Amino acid sequence: MKIKVINPNTMWEMTKGIENAAKSVARPDTQIVAVSPQMGPASIESYYDEYLCIPGVLEEIKKGEEEGVDAFVIACWGDPGLQAAREVTDKPVVGIAEASVYLASMLAARFSVVTVLPRIKTMLEELVDSYGVSKRVLNIRTTPMCVLDFERDPEAGMEMLRQEGKKAVEEDQAEAILLGCAGMAEFANNLEKELGVPVIDGVVAAVKFAESIVDLGKKTSKLKTYKYPEKKSFVGALEKFGKSQSTFK
Amino acid sequence: MKIKVINPNTMWEMTKGIENAAKSVARPDTQIVAVSPQMGPASIESYYDEYLCIPGVLEEIKKGEEEGVDAFVIACWGDPGLQAAREVTDKPVVGIAEASVYLASMLAARFSVVTVLPRIKTMLEELVDSYGVSKRVLNIRTTPMCVLDFERDPEAGMEMLRQEGKKAVEEDQAEAILLGCAGMAEFANNLEKELGVPVIDGVVAAVKFAESIVDLGKKTSKLKTYKYPEKKSFVGALEKFGKSQSTFK
Amino acid sequence: MKIKVINPNTMWEMTKGIENAAKSVARPDTQIVAVSPQMGPASIESYYDEYLCIPGVLEEIKKGEEEGVDAFVIACWGDPGLQAAREVTDKPVVGIAEASVYLASMLAARFSVVTVLPRIKTMLEELVDSYGVSKRVLNIRTTPMCVLDFERDPEAGMEMLRQEGKKAVEEDQAEAILLGCAGMAEFANNLEKELGVPVIDGVVAAVKFAESIVDLGKKTSKLKTYKYPEKKSFVGALEKFGKSQSTFK
Amino acid sequence: MKIKVINPNTMWEMTKGIENAAKSVARPDTQIVAVSPQMGPASIESYYDEYLCIPGVLEEIKKGEEEGVDAFVIACWGDPGLQAAREVTDKPVVGIAEASVYLASMLAARFSVVTVLPRIKTMLEELVDSYGVSKRVLNIRTTPMCVLDFERDPEAGMEMLRQEGKKAVEEDQAEAILLGCAGMAEFANNLEKELGVPVIDGVVAAVKFAESIVDLGKKTSKLKTYKYPEKKSFVGALEKFGKSQSTFK
Amino acid sequence: MKIKVINPNTMWEMTKGIENAAKSVARPDTQIVAVSPQMGPASIESYYDEYLCIPGVLEEIKKGEEEGVDAFVIACWGDPGLQAAREVTDKPVVGIAEASVYLASMLAARFSVVTVLPRIKTMLEELVDSYGVSKRVLNIRTTPMCVLDFERDPEAGMEMLRQEGKKAVEEDQAEAILLGCAGMAEFANNLEKELGVPVIDGVVAAVKFAESIVDLGKKTSKLKTYKYPEKKSFVGALEKFGKSQSTFK
Amino acid sequence: MKIKVINPNTMWEMTKGIENAAKSVARPDTQIVAVSPQMGPASIESYYDEYLCIPGVLEEIKKGEEEGVDAFVIACWGDPGLQAAREVTDKPVVGIAEASVYLASMLAARFSVVTVLPRIKTMLEELVDSYGVSKRVLNIRTTPMCVLDFERDPEAGMEMLRQEGKKAVEEDQAEAILLGCAGMAEFANNLEKELGVPVIDGVVAAVKFAESIVDLGKKTSKLKTYKYPEKKSFVGALEKFGKSQSTFK
Repeated sequence: MKIKVINPNTMWEMTKGIENAAKSVARPDTQIVAVSPQMGPASIESYYDEYLCIPGVLEEIKKGEEEGVDAFVIACWGDPGLQAAREVTDKPVVGIAEASVYLASMLAARFSVVTVLPRIKTMLEELVDSYGVSKRVLNIRTTPMCVLDFERDPEAGMEMLRQEGKKAVEEDQAEAILLGCAGMAEFANNLEKELGVPVIDGVVAAVKFAESIVDLGKKTSKLKTYKYPEKKSFVGALEKFGKSQSTFK
Repeated sequence: MKIKVINPNTMWEMTKGIENAAKSVARPDTQIVAVSPQMGPASIESYYDEYLCIPGVLEEIKKGEEEGVDAFVIACWGDPGLQAAREVTDKPVVGIAEASVYLASMLAARFSVVTVLPRIKTMLEELVDSYGVSKRVLNIRTTPMCVLDFERDPEAGMEMLRQEGKKAVEEDQAEAILLGCAGMAEFANNLEKELGVPVIDGVVAAVKFAESIVDLGKKTSKLKTYKYPEKKSFVGALEKFGKSQSTFK
Repeated sequence: MKIKVINPNTMWEMTKGIENAAKSVARPDTQIVAVSPQMGPASIESYYDEYLCIPGVLEEIKKGEEEGVDAFVIACWGDPGLQAAREVTDKPVVGIAEASVYLASMLAARFSVVTVLPRIKTMLEELVDSYGVSKRVLNIRTTPMCVLDFERDPEAGMEMLRQEGKKAVEEDQAEAILLGCAGMAEFANNLEKELGVPVIDGVVAAVKFAESIVDLGKKTSKLKTYKYPEKKSFVGALEKFGKSQSTFK
Repeated sequence: MKIKVINPNTMWEMTKGIENAAKSVARPDTQIVAVSPQMGPASIESYYDEYLCIPGVLEEIKKGEEEGVDAFVIACWGDPGLQAAREVTDKPVVGIAEASVYLASMLAARFSVVTVLPRIKTMLEELVDSYGVSKRVLNIRTTPMCVLDFERDPEAGMEMLRQEGKKAVEEDQAEAILLGCAGMAEFANNLEKELGVPVIDGVVAAVKFAESIVDLGKKTSKLKTYKYPEKKSFVGALEKFGKSQSTFK
Repeated sequence: MKIKVINPNTMWEMTKGIENAAKSVARPDTQIVAVSPQMGPASIESYYDEYLCIPGVLEEIKKGEEEGVDAFVIACWGDPGLQAAREVTDKPVVGIAEASVYLASMLAARFSVVTVLPRIKTMLEELVDSYGVSKRVLNIRTTPMCVLDFERDPEAGMEMLRQEGKKAVEEDQAEAILLGCAGMAEFANNLEKELGVPVIDGVVAAVKFAESIVDLGKKTSKLKTYKYPEKKSFVGALEKFGKSQSTFK
Repeated sequence: MKIKVINPNTMWEMTKGIENAAKSVARPDTQIVAVSPQMGPASIESYYDEYLCIPGVLEEIKKGEEEGVDAFVIACWGDPGLQAAREVTDKPVVGIAEASVYLASMLAARFSVVTVLPRIKTMLEELVDSYGVSKRVLNIRTTPMCVLDFERDPEAGMEMLRQEGKKAVEEDQAEAILLGCAGMAEFANNLEKELGVPVIDGVVAAVKFAESIVDLGKKTSKLKTYKYPEKKSFVGALEKFGKSQSTFK
């Protein structure tokens, strides 16, 4: 099967790391295609970035339909555009935040998230609330490091995660740690060994869930909320999002 | 004062109606500027449309900064991009769904929403939940008419709202009716007379709230969640969203 | 238009301060009438005070009907008797706690309240919960100062608010501060300058919302919950609350 | 022990019925004193009535302190003034709505309430929500009969309760019925026989809980929320509520 | 009347203490029968223990039916098997956690629980949540002492409760303390004197509630959720749980 | 890898069907071992059955440790004993209700459950609430058929599911159907074809999730809530549950 992993950040170094993580857990017969969108922000650290990465993500979903993709993963811990993606295709689409909280809920009673800048704390609070796991989330720990910082200086990134992870275990009494950014995938295994609790990277979780859903032959429900978008014209720089709708079933 | 009312739908006839509604309640010294974005969908009836209208909305917010605008209204009952808009400017930004539920809460103990297509019901449920008013909302009533239908055939639109409004009062025991689409503004007054309960159009509510906030000299908090977006590069069709960030303070 | 601002505390010095705050934001054509009830406690710092100020508040609402009042503001941060007031008149009635949390929600993602004595914390927790904003309220900070203390020694009051406000910003990471007592109106502007986040006084917020609702021609729904009270006899010191019901429509 | 049952309605016929119900379950060594306040509405069917019965209720609580009362029951299914009553005395105070929902929760997984006029539905919804049992309450069924109607025509009252009770069992699948008005106490036993599920009158439940709490030697916590009210002056018709505070410890 | 108090822990010393507590508050005409089950764990400090004590508890309930018992108390602060117990008999069954939170809610606005090992914190969080009192519970304080430790070294136990109780009052601002283990019953009175707030032992609370329910002549609803179990065969070591079902009505 | 699927019902015909379902989706290199416990009820249709199947389930988990099992599935839609199972082993344990709601949440915005007898509705409501998906669950539809009926007369079972499934789609507007009993696995595929929305059998979902978690090398967190049970003695028919604890790490 073919799984397309879309990194909504248009920073290719990061996409490479995500691809590696995805491939490290994919089954031999699963083909991983990791891409960044053709439009949008280098990294996502605000509602502004979050919303502006979505057009590019949706474009990649639609292209994926033509590329014979069996399932999609949206690899940013805000699950940007997830519901819209489910409208655009009937193939399963899995967000990494969603996959993280479901996986964590099967392994630990209570957990904490460690993520990038303080400003996204509200966004992640609302996200975990929408997934119904607020009572399981003890804390959303932010760091002074932005997405790019983790790319540029992985050693400092690892040290930061180590510190916050320890505080999560000791102060929050977190029984698992969720890495709240797709760019942290590479640190998960070492961190888990050091901290002694499950450390969950959403990229690998989402890939395995996507494989599972394809194996089960399940598709997104097209009955109501996730019907294909209504056909209509679009104007300006996004004009093609109207045109390309001709591909909607 | 100058209030910019942004209709996220790129259908100009609709924007004209919204402008009329806004002007009908604005104070003499309030200048209403009603616009549609330069990019995006003709109308908004899905998550797809919702997310794809946001770049155009944010562009209008940023232009508004240069135009000396004092406050913004986002005139679509999904409040698309509201949090991002609050990052982009420190001027108050009011969403019409938000304004509707707060106004309704001050006038009625329980109420129902009447809106367009069934597919957006989930989206509106999550929205009213995020505003903390789920217990006040008795029902979200959808109709088989899309946004454009209400523009094309206002008579049929009025008849549809009349029917659903009556059911809301009689079956739901709704004590107020919220019109869940900016394109329904023109029907509010007649409907209120017929139904005998407050019928709330979010456009006029949001304009008055925006005037109030400007009068109070209040601005959006820039401490954390709504800080100006982080500076970074954007690629592709949305490249200018990076460039124009130079205007961020 | 005429807006009657009712300070449920029967301490006239405080009412004068509230009147000044209200007038400072009212439009030129808005007449502010600020009163204290003819019966009830000097100040409100318990459920006991809260409930015992309500008869006097309701009396003022009913008198307001004869005085040609267009809207009412209840100026105590417990919104005492708000639902009953909405039964007694069809003119809009706005509570200052309610106005505060709705205004704050349009300006900041998360906020804290600073108020008087520790004993009212539970009361305010239940109040903000009833308005659906519990998740936005990071903390309800109490002080050792009672309502009268703030009147008697404004300098000490300002210092106390400054201290708690700073803690709210630094420890709670509050993005706005809500002043949880009508007697704190005078401190709002200076505090906002010092703290660098919106500081919200409910009196001015409520006045502007009341003006807005009158401008929109909206009245309280009389369909069910807020119908005029049932006619019946009252006995004892409250006998006239039965008699005066003859004025109910 | 002496338990004072306060019927917040100033309708003495009703108080007599409540007294009978209370005595029917009280232990031989429990003295029941049933009173109506000296001030307030004949019956309670709105927020207006609810708030205006509270001064009279609080007066009876304070008199009870001098009368050597061991515990109090507030016998109206809105539990009017309950928290204030807990401030005024350190003797246990039990509300009949509260007692009903706790008793019902120990006997049935899900239940419905049957009460008087439709207008109080919102009030009771908020009440059961504040007691944390919203998920257990399947329905709050109102009737076209007011409190006085049940007094004047008990036969019609019984028939109405029978009908709504049956619907509760058959349509709501209610496993117990809560009688949402103190004036319905007399119907409980017959109704239970007819319906085959527990029918819960709050008066008898509250009396037994009050006896239990006295037996356990427990008193209301005076640490914070329920401290005695702050001393202060009161004006007008409620002046004595300040004076009588001299009795507060 | 005869009340059977079942200590789900099979540690007889503990059962003796529970019996003493129960008898200390029972009315003269109430016969207390305190037992430990014939099968199950010595003490309960995990989900494992919790579930494995239930067969023994249910066996005691069924035996109680033949012994002419009028009501049952399950004396472990996890209320193990409570819903199943309500299926097995129509006599009232009261759990001590349930009784504790309802009693506490009638005496204090906010409270904390003090219990045994940290590992059961999640279990108790879910429990108080299921009883609808999460917002009233400020903290669930655990100790390094297991159930047996409290039996073996009561002095150390009392000291531990004293310390955590003080922290609950001072740090949590708890207005009452709930003892989260049946084995702590003996400490309640002294602790209450020292701490100055109600200290609630669930055993005595449940006994009084059970007496009350019997006095009221109420039985568990057999309409739906708590119907007698369906008849069917059981295998293995639990075979008799099928056989004995012949006694189900 | 070896996955042990435990059917908590001791009805072997049903276990055979569950085994078939599990094998139909397992990967070629996954060995499925399907068992029923050595003790407990033939089927599970009450809290009584639910709790009494747990000892047998836990025994199978412990045996699984010695059998070199890599992951466990608990195949009953109440997820009986799931938390205790996570204490007993550090291998992943997945419940089929849990797997169903997480899978459904990734495919559909809103869904309904169809299950066996009406009496278990409350149990399932509490279950889906504990998984945080109450707002996604439109209805829990029960049928007059018990677990055994579905085994004995699969044709009638299919017809019943067809009817309720249609009502779920048409009346509830359910976008997916969850089969609320492990014995319904065999009907899922045909039902999905007929209804046109995803029909989710928890057995296959849980098997795929278990495979995923093993692939990811994740184990249950042993930090706090799910630590191995405390060592202690057990008495009576369950004595070996103490002895066998010697195997706990």
